[in-house]
Amino acid sequence: MSLIVVGTMAFDAIETPFGKSDRIIGGSATYVAYAAANFVQPVQQISIVGNDFPEAEMAELRSRGVQLDGVEVVADKPSFFWSGRYHMDMNTRDTLVTDLNVLADFNPQVPDAFQGAEFLMLGNLMPKLQKQVIEQLKERPRLIVMDTMNFWMDIAMDDLKEVLGMVDVLLVNDGEARQLSGEFSLVKAARKIMAMGPQYLIIKKGEHGALLFHKDQVFFAPALPLEDVFDPTGAGDTFAGGFIGHIARTKDISFDNMKTAIIVGSAMASYCVEKFGPERLKEITKEDIERRLQQFQELVNFDIELV
Amino acid sequence: MSLIVVGTMAFDAIETPFGKSDRIIGGSATYVAYAAANFVQPVQQISIVGNDFPEAEMAELRSRGVQLDGVEVVADKPSFFWSGRYHMDMNTRDTLVTDLNVLADFNPQVPDAFQGAEFLMLGNLMPKLQKQVIEQLKERPRLIVMDTMNFWMDIAMDDLKEVLGMVDVLLVNDGEARQLSGEFSLVKAARKIMAMGPQYLIIKKGEHGALLFHKDQVFFAPALPLEDVFDPTGAGDTFAGGFIGHIARTKDISFDNMKTAIIVGSAMASYCVEKFGPERLKEITKEDIERRLQQFQELVNFDIELV
Repeated sequence: MSLIVVGTMAFDAIETPFGKSDRIIGGSATYVAYAAANFVQPVQQISIVGNDFPEAEMAELRSRGVQLDGVEVVADKPSFFWSGRYHMDMNTRDTLVTDLNVLADFNPQVPDAFQGAEFLMLGNLMPKLQKQVIEQLKERPRLIVMDTMNFWMDIAMDDLKEVLGMVDVLLVNDGEARQLSGEFSLVKAARKIMAMGPQYLIIKKGEHGALLFHKDQVFFAPALPLEDVFDPTGAGDTFAGGFIGHIARTKDISFDNMKTAIIVGSAMASYCVEKFGPERLKEITKEDIERRLQQFQELVNFDIELV
Repeated sequence: MSLIVVGTMAFDAIETPFGKSDRIIGGSATYVAYAAANFVQPVQQISIVGNDFPEAEMAELRSRGVQLDGVEVVADKPSFFWSGRYHMDMNTRDTLVTDLNVLADFNPQVPDAFQGAEFLMLGNLMPKLQKQVIEQLKERPRLIVMDTMNFWMDIAMDDLKEVLGMVDVLLVNDGEARQLSGEFSLVKAARKIMAMGPQYLIIKKGEHGALLFHKDQVFFAPALPLEDVFDPTGAGDTFAGGFIGHIARTKDISFDNMKTAIIVGSAMASYCVEKFGPERLKEITKEDIERRLQQFQELVNFDIELV
């Protein structure tokens, strides 16, 4: 039940209408790993960091069953750094700083020990690098899940479309689904995007939940109504980590099990936003996760009484 | 199982990014009645129309079990008229014309035959008039449901708050919940609004579904992902009609039954938006409604497997 995760490990600095963080740990693969490791071990991580990434953070990840053999450490450069400011709705944000640093030269290498993995999670990263990892795998994983973002649609759409043809599940948000398809209706957008390659499409709508499309089927997962969203950074990556973690644990890639996986992803994301960075993900226990999954069931459970 | 419905019966003219209607039938009580009459009869209607409201429409409503004894017909004035233009997202709109006409002098009177009704649906209308109807009822209905909108918050907030203290269930959209409470978080907004009177609060989020709050409980109902939304006018009123129709049919005002009622309301609203005005509501059969309720169940149904 091995799982490879590819993506960034980085520093973020975040401003929200409610607070401001210092330089804190971030990165798509970091969030995916913290979320997925609750469900499956080992998590086989492929990423790159600079000379400033704390050894304590690496140790923390290792203690949770995250194998870091695929994480390149560059001695003479700092880690990738992103800074952004969220708007009042906490769904939209402006990027203030993007320092690629080590990411500019990232040339991901799959360690021999990672070969044969059943599941591959391509966290948000340059599409070209996502493709490079797929191509290094001697055996195709049973399920390849890809996360991406509008930034790559703006500057690397051709690369992105090439990777789309190689993956099974795509994760995007509603704005990105519209941008990628040119359709406003998400139902129409889903049909067009699935024609580009992925058999399954997950459209994340932040506080409005998420939709899973597959052929003519559709499933809707709510977001938990929260009193406060403290920091949405990493919520999408955490969602992806919960999703692939559940799939890898159960080894079941049916549509029905993907529904459950989306609820698991939503539950993990609902914890992520409660504190800055991945802090909250480090605190929660299996019991916390179970309790929240129960809340999701109560949130949507109804008796249908046909008229 | 009698149900009184109060609200407008009117004409609308609608522009959307996809089309434009002539003057067509509209009004909050019209939509509520068309939706509710699928579940409960009679629907006892209180409203006002002018000399231009078609007798054919009145006959159509009567044939569906809507009693029009409470609908005043003014011989020398035209009916209330509203015209609006929807934005691309179909969730926001600009009002182009509001001709109050007969509505300016509306003085609702509850016919004697309507006394003793178990359920009261206050469709969107001046809060003062909603209150006037409640005060005319000799026996308090088991459940009073109130719909309203931002317009009354802008110009008649004191009246609105007075009515809030007299009702059991309030229906508003997310923007209105924020305006009414001064809170951005819908969870916080719900708590404040319930402190103003209603024990139950339904927050409609258009294509993003609806939330039901009661004390510390919360339920989320999705909206059906639709390929096209043709005209959202009346969707909120139709939702209210399906909701109160189901409650009046089952005579069960428990939180659990309200969940089902919200799904019924969502199903009715999903039909409403498929054509201009209430046209689609006139076409659908009990079998159509059952089929759509089934779709809602498939949309959100998942197995939780605790980790």
